[in-house]
Amino acid sequence: MLRGNMLIAHGGGPTAVINSSLLGAVREARRHGEIETIYGARFGAEGILAGDLMDLGQVSQEQLDLLSRTPASALGSCRRKLTDRDYPAVLECFKQFNIRYFFYNGGNDSMDTCHKVYQLACQSGYELRVMGIPKTMDNDLAVTDHCPGFGSAAKYAAVSALELALDASALPIHVVVMELMGRNAGWITAASALFADRMPCEHLVYLPETDFDRQAFLSAVQEKWARGRGLLVTVSEGIHYADGTPVADTGRVDGFGHKIPGGAAQALSDLIMAETSLKSRAEKPGLLGRVSVALTSPVDRQEAEEAGAAAARAAVEGKTGYMVGFEAARSPVYHCETCLIPLEQVANAEKKFPLEWIGADGASIRPEFQDYCLPLLGGCDIRFASLR
Amino acid sequence: MLRGNMLIAHGGGPTAVINSSLLGAVREARRHGEIETIYGARFGAEGILAGDLMDLGQVSQEQLDLLSRTPASALGSCRRKLTDRDYPAVLECFKQFNIRYFFYNGGNDSMDTCHKVYQLACQSGYELRVMGIPKTMDNDLAVTDHCPGFGSAAKYAAVSALELALDASALPIHVVVMELMGRNAGWITAASALFADRMPCEHLVYLPETDFDRQAFLSAVQEKWARGRGLLVTVSEGIHYADGTPVADTGRVDGFGHKIPGGAAQALSDLIMAETSLKSRAEKPGLLGRVSVALTSPVDRQEAEEAGAAAARAAVEGKTGYMVGFEAARSPVYHCETCLIPLEQVANAEKKFPLEWIGADGASIRPEFQDYCLPLLGGCDIRFASLR
Repeated sequence: MLRGNMLIAHGGGPTAVINSSLLGAVREARRHGEIETIYGARFGAEGILAGDLMDLGQVSQEQLDLLSRTPASALGSCRRKLTDRDYPAVLECFKQFNIRYFFYNGGNDSMDTCHKVYQLACQSGYELRVMGIPKTMDNDLAVTDHCPGFGSAAKYAAVSALELALDASALPIHVVVMELMGRNAGWITAASALFADRMPCEHLVYLPETDFDRQAFLSAVQEKWARGRGLLVTVSEGIHYADGTPVADTGRVDGFGHKIPGGAAQALSDLIMAETSLKSRAEKPGLLGRVSVALTSPVDRQEAEEAGAAAARAAVEGKTGYMVGFEAARSPVYHCETCLIPLEQVANAEKKFPLEWIGADGASIRPEFQDYCLPLLGGCDIRFASLR
Repeated sequence: MLRGNMLIAHGGGPTAVINSSLLGAVREARRHGEIETIYGARFGAEGILAGDLMDLGQVSQEQLDLLSRTPASALGSCRRKLTDRDYPAVLECFKQFNIRYFFYNGGNDSMDTCHKVYQLACQSGYELRVMGIPKTMDNDLAVTDHCPGFGSAAKYAAVSALELALDASALPIHVVVMELMGRNAGWITAASALFADRMPCEHLVYLPETDFDRQAFLSAVQEKWARGRGLLVTVSEGIHYADGTPVADTGRVDGFGHKIPGGAAQALSDLIMAETSLKSRAEKPGLLGRVSVALTSPVDRQEAEEAGAAAARAAVEGKTGYMVGFEAARSPVYHCETCLIPLEQVANAEKKFPLEWIGADGASIRPEFQDYCLPLLGGCDIRFASLR
């Protein structure tokens, strides 16, 4: 039995349910006497480096209860990529606060950090249980069936696209283009097509997994528009031409050195207006797609909490160097269980949207994705009146 | 008692609750034997000119029940501005279908059209009861206390801004700028400040009722950012400099000849990055702000239905040439009743956001607006966990 304190930290962009993972980890940790003080790092790695920790034992039951309905990170997060020079300070913080249980809740960059902390502890002979808790709306972590945060982002994309399709068909004066998050992986944008068969207008969807073809796009837009039902185009922020050039290049990079995308919908809307006689308008809900309480998936919320709890349970049982993952069955009914995945298998790895789930036209999504994704939305039977 | 058929049509951009007004009008009309066939115009004025009407008597009860949960226009709408040359065709359609009750559901442009139809009927000696049913998310119709569609748009803006504020404070690496709809009137954007006192970050809000000052904006951004809590800027699509130049000019005009705004958030975000050392990102939910079922205000939905019903009731009672409006009391509790407003008082008139409700800094909203607006959201007690 390893006695000592626990530290949990968030890394990267928050999701609608990252606080549910925090709640799950804290609730489970409180059940185990060997975990003494439960700390949370203020603003992720920044808080660890600065020794800026909160005592989560002092948090009231009321605040804990609110956590599962609170989007964004209640601890605070950051995009700081730790360098080799930072790791001694991390270890110093752990020693200073007698941290023996460390949980890092993030995406593939954060799992890389988590893996390095694990290696550091091993090399230094500092007894530490290190567990990654998955979090990414992008759904691009390797090995795991899916990621906490994705089900809610997918629900937001699917419902928003269907609602927008109603508007696009009711006032069919412009092609409506909506941009969704996802730099390299098109999972969220694919989810915008989940209810495509219920849309009263035409729909085209473009993911970053394929090369964007300007002429094919303009031809598809004109052909679909000619059907007279209105047209919705949904597009990932990260779409690019065959030579790798982004369709919209902001010229900016984030703290991890990754290019910041954005503006793809406006670029396509401008393209439509420049090259056809059609009008177009662009929408970019952006961060709204990861904070909506109303469109949070209850399944996602519950699984995120379970992922946090499973991390704490595994650590107490002596496991270290793993990320919690999900194994799911979808037949005869959806069933999901946690599993443990060695951190080195997920660090910096990226799971893209399967090319075989993209339609032959390059602008639609095949039904296999519905089978995969719909259960993650947690019941979402949307029906609208149709009079026309 | 005037026996004959009824026609209802939608004009301009849909709202989250315009179909509730349709439902209210149809349900009420069905109670009155003198209204024989109930027609809906496909795509508003376009349908009237083309004689393209739907028999709403054929619509199933199931479809009617779905209407109040269906955003966008179930009839279809258009932005076509009728000209003097069009009105004979309108009268022709009315005669052909023996229309004796005409309901036009729209904003101030549509009320102008409605008023002209009323005058046309009077001048032609064609017996017709004409009623306007208000609809505009922009809340800019004159005389009435507020407009159906606004409560839901306000709820979307208020909740989205608060959720975005959580994200902006949790990962305070960029100034987050969100653009909201409203060409000339800032009601919706003002609603983004309804929960400003619960935001964990700083907030600045800019409406089109004031002139946008570039230097004052940059100073305010830097001062607010220096407080270290993150910063959310919400801005109306129609903001402009003192000389009237839009902060973002798309160069496009709509069917009514109005300039189409858009891109203000991106323009401000670019400005921040060009003129300060801060990072910034822009979000533009755009049309999503008028189609969200999850964020529809139940009060708005119920009032929209009542507005439709009141129009039908008044017409049967012999009234013509009016728009249904709202009279509301907010003390001791919110109470709202319909009233009738002569169409000439609302045609083309525009009610802007009161300057006295804008804070002295030009970038905040005074509490008087909360008193006015919060009841329209229909109960929206949002609480979030706060750990930091």
